[in-house]
Amino acid sequence: MPGKFITFEGGEGCGKSTQLALLKEYLQKRGQNVVATKEPGGTEIGLELRHLLVTGDKDKMDAVAEALLYYADRRIHMSQKVWPALEAGQWVLSDRFADSTVAYQYYGYDKKVDKKLLDSLYQIAVGDFKPDLTLIFDLDVEVGLARSYAKAAGMTEKETRHESRGTAFHQRLRQGFLEIAKRDPARCIVLDADKSIEDLHQDVIRIITERFGLV
Amino acid sequence: MPGKFITFEGGEGCGKSTQLALLKEYLQKRGQNVVATKEPGGTEIGLELRHLLVTGDKDKMDAVAEALLYYADRRIHMSQKVWPALEAGQWVLSDRFADSTVAYQYYGYDKKVDKKLLDSLYQIAVGDFKPDLTLIFDLDVEVGLARSYAKAAGMTEKETRHESRGTAFHQRLRQGFLEIAKRDPARCIVLDADKSIEDLHQDVIRIITERFGLV
Repeated sequence: MPGKFITFEGGEGCGKSTQLALLKEYLQKRGQNVVATKEPGGTEIGLELRHLLVTGDKDKMDAVAEALLYYADRRIHMSQKVWPALEAGQWVLSDRFADSTVAYQYYGYDKKVDKKLLDSLYQIAVGDFKPDLTLIFDLDVEVGLARSYAKAAGMTEKETRHESRGTAFHQRLRQGFLEIAKRDPARCIVLDADKSIEDLHQDVIRIITERFGLV
Repeated sequence: MPGKFITFEGGEGCGKSTQLALLKEYLQKRGQNVVATKEPGGTEIGLELRHLLVTGDKDKMDAVAEALLYYADRRIHMSQKVWPALEAGQWVLSDRFADSTVAYQYYGYDKKVDKKLLDSLYQIAVGDFKPDLTLIFDLDVEVGLARSYAKAAGMTEKETRHESRGTAFHQRLRQGFLEIAKRDPARCIVLDADKSIEDLHQDVIRIITERFGLV
């Protein structure tokens, strides 16, 4: 497809959403058409699914049900928003995508979901399509969780279903993202997220320029 | 599992919900523990998914997304309600189950979902488990739709997303259910639903008695 699909991945509080907004601004200033989106919840129906997925008790549903819901959200997101924008030649920046499902549900959870099951859901919902580039923001777990809780304190509806899973879970999650990057080095780049917002933004721009040329 | 799982299937307005309620009453009078349930929406989370699935425009999401949502609902339903009740030796009567997904999305829809994709979702969400018995209520399409619209007229929130698909769709749906029964005769029994509620109830009791012995 003529557009570019860039996904932003990492644990809670890693700064990916801030960096996504900054990259969007950077690209728009250079005259590019940019769609900033997220998973779960990148569409109207997806927002209702997001509500189910990120609020409430962590045991409200089992991991297989959760994987099915994430993939329902993903399918709606791709078919209604991402693919049409890419066909129109736009840049699509997504706050989380399929790597998050693998990191949380396969690497992170105690009762992990079978990796083959997740691969089979990817095939059902997304087919052979892949992001052009995946940025993985790597950060110390304690630093990230502290940031994430500070942010949630200002929200009326707390999206802390995942944060509540404990430090060991978040350590596995971090290692999971690193493992994903190692297995697909052509698509994934790991960024050290333990630096100032501006310095990290410069790293992102450098990677984008190296990958896609001067914008 | 020690309990019995009986699914009630058929097109809109075929009378399956009424027959389910009557069988429940019949079994309870004979001292049996019975759980009456439905798909989508047999659980608290499932009710939110049901709302997404059966209200609004028929093109609000594509058929693959819909299949993923139905299977998310199904997985939650099985893991939180059906399997625990069957483990406890209860009768579980479900208003719709996986055959409905195949009938609507594979046989019914213009843009049909690949049958292998549906089989693969069944395996992911339900595994090798199958109902002990499936009752398929077969009825003339025009008669069923007229009943269904008459029922919806009394509802504050119209669950008519599927009814709005037109007669040709509902004809394909009916043939789909008959085809499903033909392919799995050990599990499925087709009932002629064009008779009085009481006569149809007697047919159901006869089938239950033949299959499971005197209750």
